[in-house]
Amino acid sequence: MNHLTIVKVGGKMVEDESSLKTFLKDFSLIAGHKILIHGGGNAATQLAERLGVPNQMIDGRRITDEETLKIVTMVYAGLINKNIVAQLQTFSIDAIGLTGADMNLILAVKRPIHTIDYGYVGDVREVNAPVLKELLHQNYVPVLAPLTHDGAGHLLNTNADTIAGQTAQALAYNFNVRLMYCIDKKGVLMDEKDENSVIPSLTKEEFLQYKEQGFIRGGMIPKLENAFDAIASGVKEIIITRASDMHSGGGTFIC
Amino acid sequence: MNHLTIVKVGGKMVEDESSLKTFLKDFSLIAGHKILIHGGGNAATQLAERLGVPNQMIDGRRITDEETLKIVTMVYAGLINKNIVAQLQTFSIDAIGLTGADMNLILAVKRPIHTIDYGYVGDVREVNAPVLKELLHQNYVPVLAPLTHDGAGHLLNTNADTIAGQTAQALAYNFNVRLMYCIDKKGVLMDEKDENSVIPSLTKEEFLQYKEQGFIRGGMIPKLENAFDAIASGVKEIIITRASDMHSGGGTFIC
Repeated sequence: MNHLTIVKVGGKMVEDESSLKTFLKDFSLIAGHKILIHGGGNAATQLAERLGVPNQMIDGRRITDEETLKIVTMVYAGLINKNIVAQLQTFSIDAIGLTGADMNLILAVKRPIHTIDYGYVGDVREVNAPVLKELLHQNYVPVLAPLTHDGAGHLLNTNADTIAGQTAQALAYNFNVRLMYCIDKKGVLMDEKDENSVIPSLTKEEFLQYKEQGFIRGGMIPKLENAFDAIASGVKEIIITRASDMHSGGGTFIC
Repeated sequence: MNHLTIVKVGGKMVEDESSLKTFLKDFSLIAGHKILIHGGGNAATQLAERLGVPNQMIDGRRITDEETLKIVTMVYAGLINKNIVAQLQTFSIDAIGLTGADMNLILAVKRPIHTIDYGYVGDVREVNAPVLKELLHQNYVPVLAPLTHDGAGHLLNTNADTIAGQTAQALAYNFNVRLMYCIDKKGVLMDEKDENSVIPSLTKEEFLQYKEQGFIRGGMIPKLENAFDAIASGVKEIIITRASDMHSGGGTFIC
């Protein structure tokens, strides 16, 4: 089987011009097939502020009303996605920027309302693996914005970590998939305040234990849950690392 | 040779939700291969106003400084393009929304400064016909936003009429191309104030004569120049018509 590297990068890295350039150069040096999935939450928050649209967040998740959906569509699928694509072309990477609506790539359902109405937020139902596989075999590099669609004409705001995990799972039948979550820290830390407390490798048992003990918390929990789901579905290797350490072998290995 | 219909639709039609829906339904009923190219100038103007960014237009062309480029990227490649794609999927059209940077589809050069500095505005150098041909043969429907790239990492704002004309020309070797410019009027009018003065067909000689006589003027002139260039390069048929008359056989035929 061919190797495939899926890299998820957060907003901060892609919103700053100079860090984006460094990151994209590193990304372009990854050998073989690759997919990039990006965030862009800070830029969306800033645009909302400039437009006087209130930012409503619950546990780090954005409540996405109609106005907010327009904002994230503009920022994720327009500004950030197309800037990445144009810059990757300068590194001889034939990038193609896509949302889940393009080529019917990622079908989702609007999150049902229980206690909270998240608005136009999508939970992934199906990643179109054959289409992604075909693009990869034609040597394109898909660049995915964190937007899906419901098949009924609506775009849906969808967490980029989830898209990365689900895409990795969907392609695990066709490729040896390595999934890399690029974060601000050196890896998963045992002590959030100590950059040198990186956990070099993490099993599911250890994760559950560290979570229980309160060492691992916040946004890292859903990220790791995505990661363990992906491992259980046949993804070969998952690394959580600082973007600048992408080629240095550092970070936390999920196994 | 296979038939290919390329439809260019202006901003007004795609910015209003209900007219967009009607238009996309009509578009979806076109038999065979098709490409959609859209504008979005009014929505860009509105967003610029909300953000306090001055709109500078010269002869209907937008002066595109760095801030304005961000705005048109968000509106054209994000908001409008992805809404069209998501809605076409509901009509069983497997749409893929692209700019000229995606798949290196349209290479352009930043317009040289003579008397006016248009900023980040691109003049088309090359349309990647093999890639578009491949997408069409795979039964995708490309939806092109009016943005190109310079191959050096910059997106460039590019007139949608020009993209339509150049794309039609580039594909004329591989397809029997029909190019349709959808406008607000019933066709090219002999008298701008009389909707019933549609010129049913127009040769280059007649165009030059009517232009000289002042019957044809304003934005219709570059549109028709694009059209006659395309005919000279092998495009089979060009129609300038009201979007709602797409299937009725009305409008002005360019021959």
